Amino acid sequence: MRVPVELRRCYKLLNHGPTTLIASAARGRTNVMAADWVMPIDFEPPLIAVVLASGTLTRELVDQSREFTLNLPTAAMVDAVHAVGRVSGNDVDKVARYELTTSPASRVSAPFVEGCVGWLECRVKAYPDMETQLDLFVAEVTAAWADDRAFVDGEWRFGEESLRTIHHESKGVFFTTGERLAAREP
Amino acid sequence: MRVPVELRRCYKLLNHGPTTLIASAARGRTNVMAADWVMPIDFEPPLIAVVLASGTLTRELVDQSREFTLNLPTAAMVDAVHAVGRVSGNDVDKVARYELTTSPASRVSAPFVEGCVGWLECRVKAYPDMETQLDLFVAEVTAAWADDRAFVDGEWRFGEESLRTIHHESKGVFFTTGERLAAREP
Repeated sequence: MRVPVELRRCYKLLNHGPTTLIASAARGRTNVMAADWVMPIDFEPPLIAVVLASGTLTRELVDQSREFTLNLPTAAMVDAVHAVGRVSGNDVDKVARYELTTSPASRVSAPFVEGCVGWLECRVKAYPDMETQLDLFVAEVTAAWADDRAFVDGEWRFGEESLRTIHHESKGVFFTTGERLAAREP
Repeated sequence: MRVPVELRRCYKLLNHGPTTLIASAARGRTNVMAADWVMPIDFEPPLIAVVLASGTLTRELVDQSREFTLNLPTAAMVDAVHAVGRVSGNDVDKVARYELTTSPASRVSAPFVEGCVGWLECRVKAYPDMETQLDLFVAEVTAAWADDRAFVDGEWRFGEESLRTIHHESKGVFFTTGERLAAREP
């Protein structure tokens, strides 16, 4: 079940560096792309940084709407994640082609991708020089959600392999999020 | 054994989102801190973005030297990684206290942290507004290296658990880099 995550804790959804799906929508078009280059950059208000390459449909839709969702796909979704990372939304309706199910988000126009285990609703902040010089966007997380089978009491608790988040190395090689290690307090 | 990684492929060291150790040095002082908020932002030349919070010794040393190394620690190092993430270099000589072994890097004044499985030598690029407004730094990777027990023929090949990279959730909870999944080509 999708349950809300407190905004001051939503960095935990991204802190371990999982691959994301970015969903965007504007002027009747919707797109989903895979993105590895996403990270938290502040806690309160929660800010994230993400690279949105120029020339991509995602960049065009985000330039228009200034909103997107970050969705955290699972090991079970690895083939679809790779596909939406390789194929351009300028060529193909990826939501239809790869049989992704979307649903409305609560605060932004971009949709959620179903089957994921975490969702962040993001609004772009204006840093025009970073955007044009580096393709680097800063966004505020306005709402966050997680699947309570994988994120329990504010912590990732990965059980079965199919619900684990994934980490992309390159060219379709991914690693699941592995074993939990609790470090000793210094 | 530490072997060179081609610069055009060095993004693969960071792409899966591992926790890093940032080593910095200036004016006779050396510091090591843990950093999760690091990601590639371009391939050629290879650029990375990293958050260096103001008030930290690392920020002070990087502001002075404009250089640092990113070191990728292993599961075997999890207690030391957590310690250097929790304790400030303004209070403690962390290299001595946590028995870290450093060695000279090849292109920058900051040292390597031994025991890691990946190393990137970084020079900060001047984006003064990002630095002051967001604590966000962009750096070019000038040399990269990996332990050939874990990174083989340009790919991560994690075998034994102790040599896996790690991913920080929060407050000393880490996950190892888990099972390798090769996605089907779309």
